[in-house]
Amino acid sequence: MALSIQEIAAQLGGEVRGDADVTIDQVAPLERANGREIGFVAHPKYLKALQATSAAAVIVPLALADSTDLPRIVVRDPYLYFAQVAQLLNPVVSPYRGVHPSAVVQSTLPASAAVAPLAFIGEDCEIGENVVIGPGCMIERGSSIGEGTLFHANVVVYADSSIGARCILHAGCEIGSDGFGFAPRRDGSWEKIPQIGRVLIGDDVEVGANCTIDRGALDDTVIESGVKLDNMVHIAHNCRIGENSAIAGQSGMAGSSTIGKRVRIGGQSGILGHIEVCDDVVLSGRSLISKSVSEKGVYTSTIASQPHQEWLRNTVHLRHLDEMANRLRALEKKMKELESKA
Amino acid sequence: MALSIQEIAAQLGGEVRGDADVTIDQVAPLERANGREIGFVAHPKYLKALQATSAAAVIVPLALADSTDLPRIVVRDPYLYFAQVAQLLNPVVSPYRGVHPSAVVQSTLPASAAVAPLAFIGEDCEIGENVVIGPGCMIERGSSIGEGTLFHANVVVYADSSIGARCILHAGCEIGSDGFGFAPRRDGSWEKIPQIGRVLIGDDVEVGANCTIDRGALDDTVIESGVKLDNMVHIAHNCRIGENSAIAGQSGMAGSSTIGKRVRIGGQSGILGHIEVCDDVVLSGRSLISKSVSEKGVYTSTIASQPHQEWLRNTVHLRHLDEMANRLRALEKKMKELESKA
Amino acid sequence: MALSIQEIAAQLGGEVRGDADVTIDQVAPLERANGREIGFVAHPKYLKALQATSAAAVIVPLALADSTDLPRIVVRDPYLYFAQVAQLLNPVVSPYRGVHPSAVVQSTLPASAAVAPLAFIGEDCEIGENVVIGPGCMIERGSSIGEGTLFHANVVVYADSSIGARCILHAGCEIGSDGFGFAPRRDGSWEKIPQIGRVLIGDDVEVGANCTIDRGALDDTVIESGVKLDNMVHIAHNCRIGENSAIAGQSGMAGSSTIGKRVRIGGQSGILGHIEVCDDVVLSGRSLISKSVSEKGVYTSTIASQPHQEWLRNTVHLRHLDEMANRLRALEKKMKELESKA
Repeated sequence: MALSIQEIAAQLGGEVRGDADVTIDQVAPLERANGREIGFVAHPKYLKALQATSAAAVIVPLALADSTDLPRIVVRDPYLYFAQVAQLLNPVVSPYRGVHPSAVVQSTLPASAAVAPLAFIGEDCEIGENVVIGPGCMIERGSSIGEGTLFHANVVVYADSSIGARCILHAGCEIGSDGFGFAPRRDGSWEKIPQIGRVLIGDDVEVGANCTIDRGALDDTVIESGVKLDNMVHIAHNCRIGENSAIAGQSGMAGSSTIGKRVRIGGQSGILGHIEVCDDVVLSGRSLISKSVSEKGVYTSTIASQPHQEWLRNTVHLRHLDEMANRLRALEKKMKELESKA
Repeated sequence: MALSIQEIAAQLGGEVRGDADVTIDQVAPLERANGREIGFVAHPKYLKALQATSAAAVIVPLALADSTDLPRIVVRDPYLYFAQVAQLLNPVVSPYRGVHPSAVVQSTLPASAAVAPLAFIGEDCEIGENVVIGPGCMIERGSSIGEGTLFHANVVVYADSSIGARCILHAGCEIGSDGFGFAPRRDGSWEKIPQIGRVLIGDDVEVGANCTIDRGALDDTVIESGVKLDNMVHIAHNCRIGENSAIAGQSGMAGSSTIGKRVRIGGQSGILGHIEVCDDVVLSGRSLISKSVSEKGVYTSTIASQPHQEWLRNTVHLRHLDEMANRLRALEKKMKELESKA
Repeated sequence: MALSIQEIAAQLGGEVRGDADVTIDQVAPLERANGREIGFVAHPKYLKALQATSAAAVIVPLALADSTDLPRIVVRDPYLYFAQVAQLLNPVVSPYRGVHPSAVVQSTLPASAAVAPLAFIGEDCEIGENVVIGPGCMIERGSSIGEGTLFHANVVVYADSSIGARCILHAGCEIGSDGFGFAPRRDGSWEKIPQIGRVLIGDDVEVGANCTIDRGALDDTVIESGVKLDNMVHIAHNCRIGENSAIAGQSGMAGSSTIGKRVRIGGQSGILGHIEVCDDVVLSGRSLISKSVSEKGVYTSTIASQPHQEWLRNTVHLRHLDEMANRLRALEKKMKELESKA
């Protein structure tokens, strides 16, 4: 795949300056882009990298439109444009066509769907046009998958789940497993509460490798359109994630929590159960939301490491903070008495 | 499945009041239950919801036996009873029967066992009556699985593991993987220590999706009967988990730790290695046990997030707590001197 | 497998003292070793266990060479030697030979390679001598696997990944999944950035069960030789892990971070993105590296739990540390004024 920047701009928009016929075949970071590659710069602070690059062409914002003589495409959002060029030059081409003879398919599929080797589709599933089911995927009865959705290998979809169009599910993610619901018996053992809800996933959702999304207990677990989950994210039963929210790796949401639209959650973070988080909240990496959040903004409980001996000296006091606070108050009282005498 | 509350009480006990012939076909939360559904209320504080519900019938404790005119079942533990009714109305019906022709089975199975498509059972396995092995499961040689145990899809059981009766293993969990054991060589590289122990799982255990339970190094890793693990729980080699303990999602136990019976561990928690935790301990979500615990009770190290700027202002002092403690002590000393002079 | 300690020393080195013909068939901890087993002691502080053991033979350091009458092998590194003896007595014997008829193999394999039931190898893969691909593994086109590497069940390797020789990949690990890369659109939705880098894994690497290693965005993700990853470790796109580093369970590295050689990371730890960590750093369990580390040593941010009521009393002050610091400063100022007056 090789395109001139003129051809790229014809497809994606943007204004070409300099030699419009220069041909590129790949995207690359400015620092190591070569004479067949295009880079991008989003901000004037990277001017130096722009001037030093060996790239064939660059994508620049209006503010830098004339800061280089290189062939360039001037756009409003260089990073977004770079992503679009990368897609143009690296189209997703699945090696799977039709139903492999080793696959076991018990539902009717459109001719455009592909089922890779050793995959299974149970009864009463609805599979959209151009769906690709990767090798080793297990789709249980009664599930539906929207058009153009791509499953990588060994994905599991429990019965009666619903997944929208143009989603990407990465290897080993499990959709629709039982939520963690048990009622205690008097002897300390547990009675299982049947998990009779479903998982409903919207369109354009990406689910990372080895994620788990539990089905609802009585109601459904809902992942709205445009949501992106990184690897090993755990979504418990009855959660709802609003449109275009993004959750980084190894984070988890406990049961019955709801997050709004465009929420961004850093890696290894957590949200306790029965919480509501409003739209446009950002949670820093390795932080915890323990109470509902009704005001947008950035929230944090990250604790960074120190050299071990310093850490020991400092954190021993964490166990005595209340005592320290009391002593501070006592001193203030005495100080006031002394001052009143003075 | 539809049952009158009279029929339910005949099976599960409890005292019926009101119209015993009212028929229900599903459980639901009081707030949205309809005229074919049964809800429950466990505590007088939900009296309002009880009075507002459109449910066909309700499960109530003795204290609320006459707080509604609805058909009702009066029981000691309404939540437990609700779970039992839910099971009655939602029996587990596996779509898998017999051994699917695409499965590879190298051991002798009872006729009542089911092996779903594309599953594998190696040599010398012992499989109990009514076991269901889901699609894509890989059970390696020499493992045993007790009667009535259900494997969802893509579960892996390493060689020589033992799993009891009536267990449920969710998709993608890995039983019997090697523990993390290496001896350092002088040059900084690692010599693998063969992991020759096994995993022994009791009866009535539930293992969540994508959990990992490592085999023992020399001795065995033991999960006692009635234990419930949520998704993505990691149990390292040589751990022992006592009866009826429950561990929520994304928690982990490091090697050779033991927890007692009825221990409850919140999500994203951790237990360091070589720890002993006694019976009936509760660990709050996202907390860490770093020393053995010999007294039952609730333990916590959860740190909740704040707005980012506040967090920055406060946590900068974490690195100086020891200095703050010293300054506080110095002030107290001076104050005493001043007071003695005064 | 049974060997005399003379035969062991002939293979592994070390000096035999006592009855060289005593035969052992297994390793065991000193405390429960029986008359057919060998134990080890690494340090004089375990002298008591040495004197009480019922082991047939022991591995001892020079300092304890004559502290027992038992048949013994005197070596420099008893723990390392013990690991080597354990390997000798417990050779890895895969039950898989050749290509099972249920496997789907689209590349040419050496006759010495084994492919277990229901595994898949796509086109254009290069598979080394004596490779074992476990049941249910899905190896996608264009990947290479070095000689003697062992895959346990249900491992996924995305297209164009490279894995070295003598590696061990545990069940359910996913190699080469897409990194978490999206450019924001003006409406809050996300444009996917194609992940066109690869995963490159060196020799003698062990990857734990259910780990995920993402492919690079533009460049590659690199795991150097000798690295050991425990279960559920998440390595994001473009990370690099130096030789012989070891990462314990449920830890994660965010994108584009680099750690040096012989770095050891405790369980449930994290490394933020775009960080550099130098050689020989040790990170305590459940700690976070949030800034680059250029000096070797131990770093910690572990927070241990307390009884819940104490925790509440103490941590409430975390939110007021800045105020406490200000009050402390104010008191010091007043004290100075009082002292200057006195």
